[in-house]
Amino acid sequence: MASCRGQRSTVGPECVSRLFKSVVNMVKSKRFVVARHFDGLPKESDFQLVEEETPDLKDGEILVASIFSSVDPYMRTLSRRLSEGVTMVGECCARVAESKSSDFPVGTVIVHQYGWRTHAVLDTENQDPPRKAPADYPKDLPLSLLLGAVGIPGLTAYFGLLKCLEAKEGETVFVNAAAGATGSIVGQIARIKGCKAVGSAGSDAKVAWLKELGFDAAFNYKTVSSLDAALKEAAPNGIDCYFDNVGGDFTTTVLNHMNLYGRVAIVGGISTYNDKDPSSKGAFPYKAIQGKQLTLIGFVVSRWLDQWPQGKAQMMQWIKEGKIKYREHVTEGFENMPKAFIGMLVGENIGKAIVKL
Amino acid sequence: MASCRGQRSTVGPECVSRLFKSVVNMVKSKRFVVARHFDGLPKESDFQLVEEETPDLKDGEILVASIFSSVDPYMRTLSRRLSEGVTMVGECCARVAESKSSDFPVGTVIVHQYGWRTHAVLDTENQDPPRKAPADYPKDLPLSLLLGAVGIPGLTAYFGLLKCLEAKEGETVFVNAAAGATGSIVGQIARIKGCKAVGSAGSDAKVAWLKELGFDAAFNYKTVSSLDAALKEAAPNGIDCYFDNVGGDFTTTVLNHMNLYGRVAIVGGISTYNDKDPSSKGAFPYKAIQGKQLTLIGFVVSRWLDQWPQGKAQMMQWIKEGKIKYREHVTEGFENMPKAFIGMLVGENIGKAIVKL
Repeated sequence: MASCRGQRSTVGPECVSRLFKSVVNMVKSKRFVVARHFDGLPKESDFQLVEEETPDLKDGEILVASIFSSVDPYMRTLSRRLSEGVTMVGECCARVAESKSSDFPVGTVIVHQYGWRTHAVLDTENQDPPRKAPADYPKDLPLSLLLGAVGIPGLTAYFGLLKCLEAKEGETVFVNAAAGATGSIVGQIARIKGCKAVGSAGSDAKVAWLKELGFDAAFNYKTVSSLDAALKEAAPNGIDCYFDNVGGDFTTTVLNHMNLYGRVAIVGGISTYNDKDPSSKGAFPYKAIQGKQLTLIGFVVSRWLDQWPQGKAQMMQWIKEGKIKYREHVTEGFENMPKAFIGMLVGENIGKAIVKL
Repeated sequence: MASCRGQRSTVGPECVSRLFKSVVNMVKSKRFVVARHFDGLPKESDFQLVEEETPDLKDGEILVASIFSSVDPYMRTLSRRLSEGVTMVGECCARVAESKSSDFPVGTVIVHQYGWRTHAVLDTENQDPPRKAPADYPKDLPLSLLLGAVGIPGLTAYFGLLKCLEAKEGETVFVNAAAGATGSIVGQIARIKGCKAVGSAGSDAKVAWLKELGFDAAFNYKTVSSLDAALKEAAPNGIDCYFDNVGGDFTTTVLNHMNLYGRVAIVGGISTYNDKDPSSKGAFPYKAIQGKQLTLIGFVVSRWLDQWPQGKAQMMQWIKEGKIKYREHVTEGFENMPKAFIGMLVGENIGKAIVKL
């Protein structure tokens, strides 16, 4: 991992030159730390905003300023491992503001995973250097898509559906949290590949959007009489590929609707993320797995890191052709990151939840 | 499916010729029916022995007399679907006693799946004719192995480990119920393939046998301080392939010991078979599946039906070479089938539980 400096929140007397610089350049950096471990759904008071000056750059380092910051479900899971006082995890799309690396001149757009921060000092000579935006990234696409359809959520949909589930023409694909950043793309790729796309989401507005996107069937899981009945109606021939973002009881129910030799991608478990013990929800669906000879595959998109360039190229192509549509739920202002994060966890967003700095 | 006649238990006045025949040939057939649905562990009184004469053969039919009858864990699961009064499900190794089929002359050894019965009339012109013993079945091997190492339990181990788990040299394979008909072969094939074989079983005598068979590590799950501690000691580098015959809480624990990209074959769930709701035991191990990017595969050995001949040939070869050893737990007498079945469910057997008629 690239080192990330700039964590100091106090300034000692030895830092005169740096203080002088900060007065001259006024490069003040902000970041959010986890003030206390989340108990259930995070609260705004669980986060603390820390302000500090950025350090001088060493050879090979760059100072990047965030343009967009991402809030994603996985951050709730990863946060369990963070000590109090540590910068909240997350991904940013940023631009190089100062550079001591010829490979990353000022203005270069990059994506980094150094958490909720306005600025970061990154070592470009590290084994895992910052990821540049693709050289052919279309000028008319917002850079925020580097955190969405052309970033981790889009690649998760792409590799999950095509490499992990191996969805084939004519098969029924079911995805939950379908109006989210990943789910909405899963359904659209399924349609491109000649599959029947079925999605569930948590509001009528989301369901309406899914239908606009071309989903063959979609339902609001909060208002249907039962998930069983809704699945029976939406996927009367059963489900061949299940892209699971939700986990828990929801998944235990869905597995009963799978066809023989069905495949299940275990991608996320947002229904369980705020539980003290995320394993406590939902019984082990042994009977369905064995009886229907299902394959369940847990995956993280980094499994296909070597193929990300092809995945991004394909996503950009489909977006340009109008085959993949996207929507963003934009929150303005770095100070509102906790609010945006909590809103995403309770499902306020349609499409990708993003914070614009 | 081949039709199976001879279910009548009363004889009407129209059957004089058949009665005469039965007096002359004395071919009395016995079978066990499910007298009442099992509540938890089956009891001997849940089964009823029915005696009847065998019907006359039509063209293409054969009368077979069972030599060995199998008792296997899967029968407890399948029994849930049986109505009261129906013949108990199961597999037999039988010999043709009368024949109206030139393809199946008297004396031919076959395997059929028409349940707990001393005799059966089978239609050989059916789409799914009786399976003959392999033509090159070694004369010095007991025919009972057609229900064990060279039958479904052996093939389950073979295809489960090699096709489903794709166990590779140097990997650690863990199997539970390891002293059973399938588990004992899983560990031995793992050793043949250069894997580290780890097994668990329910008695010290079973564990001693596993060590004789060449398992690298084995433990008695009933006497270890905890399954967690036992797995840590037996598989200190983690588990790559898990062949699961047990299910429930046991599996939830094992998944925490899997390595990244580990594979799990969901083959059986004997710890749950006697429960009213087999799904009630063990939480959905979402976190381990996703975090370690595990693949769980439910399978039934018939998935590889087209490759059974190669599988049987390989098993016979390994047995002849002494690379696969087997052990049988033989109960004498058809009348003792319920006792043998119940004994197998509570783990009395070491190796394959079989009934000799």
